[in-house]
Amino acid sequence: MKVIRSAQNKQVKEWKKLATKKGRQKQKAYLLDGWHLVKEAFMADINIKLLLMTESFKYIDEIEAMNKNKYEIIVISEEVANHLSETPSPQGIFAVISLENTHDDETFLQGAWLMLDSVQDPGNIGTMVRTADAAGFSGVIFGDGTADVFQPKVVRAMQGSQFHIKVLTGSLNKWIQQMHTQHVPVFGTELNPDAKPYDTVGKFRDFAVVMGNEGNGMHEELLKSTTHNLYIPIKGHAESLNVAVAAGILMFQLKA
Amino acid sequence: MKVIRSAQNKQVKEWKKLATKKGRQKQKAYLLDGWHLVKEAFMADINIKLLLMTESFKYIDEIEAMNKNKYEIIVISEEVANHLSETPSPQGIFAVISLENTHDDETFLQGAWLMLDSVQDPGNIGTMVRTADAAGFSGVIFGDGTADVFQPKVVRAMQGSQFHIKVLTGSLNKWIQQMHTQHVPVFGTELNPDAKPYDTVGKFRDFAVVMGNEGNGMHEELLKSTTHNLYIPIKGHAESLNVAVAAGILMFQLKA
Repeated sequence: MKVIRSAQNKQVKEWKKLATKKGRQKQKAYLLDGWHLVKEAFMADINIKLLLMTESFKYIDEIEAMNKNKYEIIVISEEVANHLSETPSPQGIFAVISLENTHDDETFLQGAWLMLDSVQDPGNIGTMVRTADAAGFSGVIFGDGTADVFQPKVVRAMQGSQFHIKVLTGSLNKWIQQMHTQHVPVFGTELNPDAKPYDTVGKFRDFAVVMGNEGNGMHEELLKSTTHNLYIPIKGHAESLNVAVAAGILMFQLKA
Repeated sequence: MKVIRSAQNKQVKEWKKLATKKGRQKQKAYLLDGWHLVKEAFMADINIKLLLMTESFKYIDEIEAMNKNKYEIIVISEEVANHLSETPSPQGIFAVISLENTHDDETFLQGAWLMLDSVQDPGNIGTMVRTADAAGFSGVIFGDGTADVFQPKVVRAMQGSQFHIKVLTGSLNKWIQQMHTQHVPVFGTELNPDAKPYDTVGKFRDFAVVMGNEGNGMHEELLKSTTHNLYIPIKGHAESLNVAVAAGILMFQLKA
């Protein structure tokens, strides 16, 4: 097995670049950090390009049993692991994953979809993908202006849900128009008591719900293009809900 | 107005200690960081001990109009502001707030209550307090083993909701026993399909719902002491929901 000990190594520098959008696009790959995520990738039968593992990694036997020599494993030093990881104490296992084509080349949408309109916080975004998975959604569409799907903090918060449901990127307007032609309801969300209370429209098998930016909400022109816009009534004195919490309440309420 | 320019100043060192539980207990105070939170404290007519403000703070006129010379204002340098703040670009306004007695000296509970059983992540905890506020809850009880209410990250995520609803600390078991004597239902939560689905028990005016630790859930003995334990059915392949998302779904579902 190949061993790399220096964080100055040329290959390590390339892997480090996977933390940036530019690096991911150039190498058509992103990095998984941690045992739970790497296991999820194996279980989902995802295209793993490469595994990186420290000598002291706790589950070497398990990973070799799962891998069955299918993917190359490179041994790295603790120094390299610390350099690559964004967590304070990395577990010593990484996988370089092929970026499948996640662009909006799909022509038919079934099931429930979460759409993100310029959502910014990576932790919130990852949590929403995880919640969409738990709620039985078909996928999440990252609209223009939303943080990148495969940035490290989003990947950490998704907890592997990108292997269970579809994660697409593209213009929300285009998707919404397509859903209208198929008579699939699209629900916008706004902090506006004039909108419909979220628990009065029923439950659906095929639909989409759109979450807006943390500070500014959904774009005005998207709000105008939905079937209905929904509102979660605030009963106390808080100004708003955290966007991931609001998305969770809506997804579990609306999904049949 | 008193001016403090050095982060080495003795008083600055005392304020810095408010980031630790020991420091907060000794000084019986905690620190608010940022304009939104300080405004909330003024609106809630909370006991402010002291205001700290940089010379370049954007809303000096507004703060002086709100304060009407009621509380002492100390001018601090950018260096001191950066030293005190846990955010990368502090806004230049802080308030030292008296720690009211938040221990379990209340004898009667009305309304809806969220209880936290050894919840650890400060962002999740603060978000749950904010959500409880938005859902019209009476308060949140921080059980033993839960992260401290007034640590900086919890305070940031609460977004001022500690001024709108009660935030108490104590033994959950004691509260639960008291609720039983008053025939108020207490709902535990567990990741166990044998528990009751969360949307089958109805809506309540007076009740409590308990959230458990992110990794281990609720303590076994507490699960045994509830009226019912609830479960949010996971429809997809995610292993679990984020605790703050789960709490949001439950609170909005159960509250009448």
